[in-house]
Amino acid sequence: MSSIKVVGIGPGNLSDMTERAKLAIVEAEVIVGYNTYIKLIEPLIYDKQVIGTGMMQEIERCKAAVEASLTKNVVVVSSGDAGVYGMAGLVLEMILNIPHELRPNFEVIAGVSAVNAAASILGAPLMHDFAVISLSDLLTSWNLIKKRIECAAQGDFVIAIYNPKSRKRTENIVEVQQIILKYRDKNTPVGIVTGASRDNESKIISTLEKFTDEEINMFSLVIIGNSQTYVKENYMITPRGYKI
Amino acid sequence: MSSIKVVGIGPGNLSDMTERAKLAIVEAEVIVGYNTYIKLIEPLIYDKQVIGTGMMQEIERCKAAVEASLTKNVVVVSSGDAGVYGMAGLVLEMILNIPHELRPNFEVIAGVSAVNAAASILGAPLMHDFAVISLSDLLTSWNLIKKRIECAAQGDFVIAIYNPKSRKRTENIVEVQQIILKYRDKNTPVGIVTGASRDNESKIISTLEKFTDEEINMFSLVIIGNSQTYVKENYMITPRGYKI
Repeated sequence: MSSIKVVGIGPGNLSDMTERAKLAIVEAEVIVGYNTYIKLIEPLIYDKQVIGTGMMQEIERCKAAVEASLTKNVVVVSSGDAGVYGMAGLVLEMILNIPHELRPNFEVIAGVSAVNAAASILGAPLMHDFAVISLSDLLTSWNLIKKRIECAAQGDFVIAIYNPKSRKRTENIVEVQQIILKYRDKNTPVGIVTGASRDNESKIISTLEKFTDEEINMFSLVIIGNSQTYVKENYMITPRGYKI
Repeated sequence: MSSIKVVGIGPGNLSDMTERAKLAIVEAEVIVGYNTYIKLIEPLIYDKQVIGTGMMQEIERCKAAVEASLTKNVVVVSSGDAGVYGMAGLVLEMILNIPHELRPNFEVIAGVSAVNAAASILGAPLMHDFAVISLSDLLTSWNLIKKRIECAAQGDFVIAIYNPKSRKRTENIVEVQQIILKYRDKNTPVGIVTGASRDNESKIISTLEKFTDEEINMFSLVIIGNSQTYVKENYMITPRGYKI
């Protein structure tokens, strides 16, 4: 029986990928994913069939992957963890529409998520309860996103922000900042990691008042501290509460 | 110069560990961690010095690790991701108290977090914004934990619960259930994964009304769906919002 595996390849560098993910890629006949991600795993692909284009929409790409998986072993790659804003859900929804007798084996292989990679670069900002929120309003209403930011700020969660900016969407992050400033001190630490675990990795530690002045783009992940988070020697730390 | 690396070993199986984590362990002179975690990585340890005991408290263990790292290359292992309720923060806080000229190199190596591993087993429950909350009230007041549950429920976050129960703490999860029931339908899907990626891995899919009747222990991770989450053929799916 053929199979389709949705594989989280981690933040970028091959050394941050799990053995299980590598093995799935090496054993696959067809690899599907964004060109950017395909490029990151090139050494593992050799002469496999690749369905990878920057232009094709997520839905079309998933359809092509699912169709190929009816007769071949397919891997769909997602950066970070495939289960967090990745391809796991869309592929699973399509697979469940196929009659049982034709259905390929389905598996999600978890990877190191972008938020965990960014945290490791900043120090230890996620040692306490946290919320993960995407600012992309293509599929989610901006009002719901703002409500979630408000709730997360009220609950004193560390807040990790995916998709903080795109070329067209540059002002939402400022609105987010203004909402959180209602609940948190203006000196609350904010970490920005861009291109985590890739060649151009960069790290900035700023404050809630000033972080929107820094370079933030679609490859950035922003982590906003809670009321206990502090900065020491360019490390961002949210204490778990141990008395040392 | 000597070094101390805090390494996330992933949920349990060696194949879910990253190459970077493995290499750090293989290259270390001293390995520090809970006996349970040391056991999981035994094939990588050979004849290294091991500081691993079930009885020693986190703070004592970290102190021993930091002391050893003044002259040797030390790895502190944490299950899942070392940066999420793991050892990264405590080690970093201690390292920053050491004068610069004596200080070993410090690094956090991110791993596959328990929440991502559990999600991959349940299907695709984390495809939308989510909150991660620990119910352990050893270091955090129960009132703050309840407030966070309330805020996360109000914001319609998918809610991932770490440390849902311990031997002594069995009723908090019921209080959590009652809080969330104020905001969400009683049929909201709830997934419970116990021992993810280990030999005794188990998966239960239940509902907000009934999940507390199921077996939940200190190795369980509980994921409570948002208002859009649904169950199909024993998979739990939170749709991202694509129209397919």
